[in-house]
Amino acid sequence: MQTPHLRFKLTLAYDGTAYAGWQVQQTGTGVQELVEHALGRLLGLSLRLHSSSRTDAGVHALGMVAHVDVPPERFRLPARKFALALNAHLPRDIRVVSATRVAPDFHARFWARGKEYRYFVWNHRVMNPLLRHQAWHVPTPLDLRAMRAAAAGLLGRHDFRSFAANRRYRAEHTVRELSQCSVRRQGSLLTFTVRADGFLYKMCRGIVGTLVQVGQGKIDAAGVQTILGHCDRRVAGMTAPAEGLVLWKVFYPAGGRSLPPAGDSPAPLVTDE
Amino acid sequence: MQTPHLRFKLTLAYDGTAYAGWQVQQTGTGVQELVEHALGRLLGLSLRLHSSSRTDAGVHALGMVAHVDVPPERFRLPARKFALALNAHLPRDIRVVSATRVAPDFHARFWARGKEYRYFVWNHRVMNPLLRHQAWHVPTPLDLRAMRAAAAGLLGRHDFRSFAANRRYRAEHTVRELSQCSVRRQGSLLTFTVRADGFLYKMCRGIVGTLVQVGQGKIDAAGVQTILGHCDRRVAGMTAPAEGLVLWKVFYPAGGRSLPPAGDSPAPLVTDE
Repeated sequence: MQTPHLRFKLTLAYDGTAYAGWQVQQTGTGVQELVEHALGRLLGLSLRLHSSSRTDAGVHALGMVAHVDVPPERFRLPARKFALALNAHLPRDIRVVSATRVAPDFHARFWARGKEYRYFVWNHRVMNPLLRHQAWHVPTPLDLRAMRAAAAGLLGRHDFRSFAANRRYRAEHTVRELSQCSVRRQGSLLTFTVRADGFLYKMCRGIVGTLVQVGQGKIDAAGVQTILGHCDRRVAGMTAPAEGLVLWKVFYPAGGRSLPPAGDSPAPLVTDE
Repeated sequence: MQTPHLRFKLTLAYDGTAYAGWQVQQTGTGVQELVEHALGRLLGLSLRLHSSSRTDAGVHALGMVAHVDVPPERFRLPARKFALALNAHLPRDIRVVSATRVAPDFHARFWARGKEYRYFVWNHRVMNPLLRHQAWHVPTPLDLRAMRAAAAGLLGRHDFRSFAANRRYRAEHTVRELSQCSVRRQGSLLTFTVRADGFLYKMCRGIVGTLVQVGQGKIDAAGVQTILGHCDRRVAGMTAPAEGLVLWKVFYPAGGRSLPPAGDSPAPLVTDE
């Protein structure tokens, strides 16, 4: 009889600037392959990561989740040192925040109940050089009240096809429930928080791009409802650029099914002010 | 008679990661030379910038101030387009935030009444990869209350020689007045705000390094008073690394002496939450 594997849930943070995305289809380096490479260096065998999401080139993450199965005979370090040991084999722009032992049926993608993205906009005539890889520079004034009104209209269960990249989605696959869509201003920095049970391809960037166009007066807040009703990408606003987007957190059923001892404490890397 | 020059006050922001500091003494590229180069490209002559401060290698700025004199016959663009035109000749990690016409006797260094630095610490077991060039990673727990008590003890007028890099300062030159020294926590991010009428060489990094050691229990809060009393760098704590430090703002006498029309509005790049 085969020894059952040890399944680990990894929480990952990365600066996507230098990468061609989480998973690489053609050219460039993907974050996934570097983490798999680190696992290989540490454990001496080739392992496959299964992630909750895929992020595009230039998109960042502070709370990406992936699971991996490790044969117990290969796992010779205390579980609480797993994340630290992996980080020794990773470049500084990719970090394993935590590595927690989970039940063998945990699945990073299928168990995910929701995700939160944050999108950063630097709204000033001149770009902040410290944020040039992590925020979208919008130099024109933005009407926060109009953006908030439009954002509120997106809350709830809708067919979000209009806001996703133009792929051939079947109707039943494009309904998502948005539980948060908010904008906060701190000086010149705008933070969009978008939380849903799931996201279509480039949906978050489509929502933010459209809201910014509402803020610029190019689309009126009520118009966003019309866009939603059309279910057609061509009617929505622009797709916001990749560099402002951060996969902030992936949600799993409460109570978790982490196996004690849970290894590293799952203190989140993200800053909740 | 010589035509009087036009004096401009430039507010500059830069990511110091790639630079050997504001002014280069030996090897590497300085921020100052790139801004002077941009002035040369735009105006067709070699001009000298006079800055409020010098920042070390790896230190950032959002509110560096410098002045420059431009012969009026060379200045053929509307003053409000000066900053924009200079930015076209600068790399993305250096930005001219504003360029304002000022009185011919304005002096970026001699007129400065005070400066504010901010220092960022990422206080979590694992470094945030998005902040790896802009914050100091302190993985051990920090006692915020102890750091605040020690910081309060530094307020007011003192001889800060103990906190500055070990240069031969004459006593009368090392007294400074600290009007703010505070620490704020937002999740894993600590922000130190240090405001004074002036700073000795590496004084801000000496203060933050010492406060962090107070937070780690290596120095007690009362000990900071003793350090201050000793007037000797060797008794203070460590110097915090360059990458966490940002020259946030330089203060000039209120009412300003900007000449109308003041050119670009001096909306600050910094985010005051």
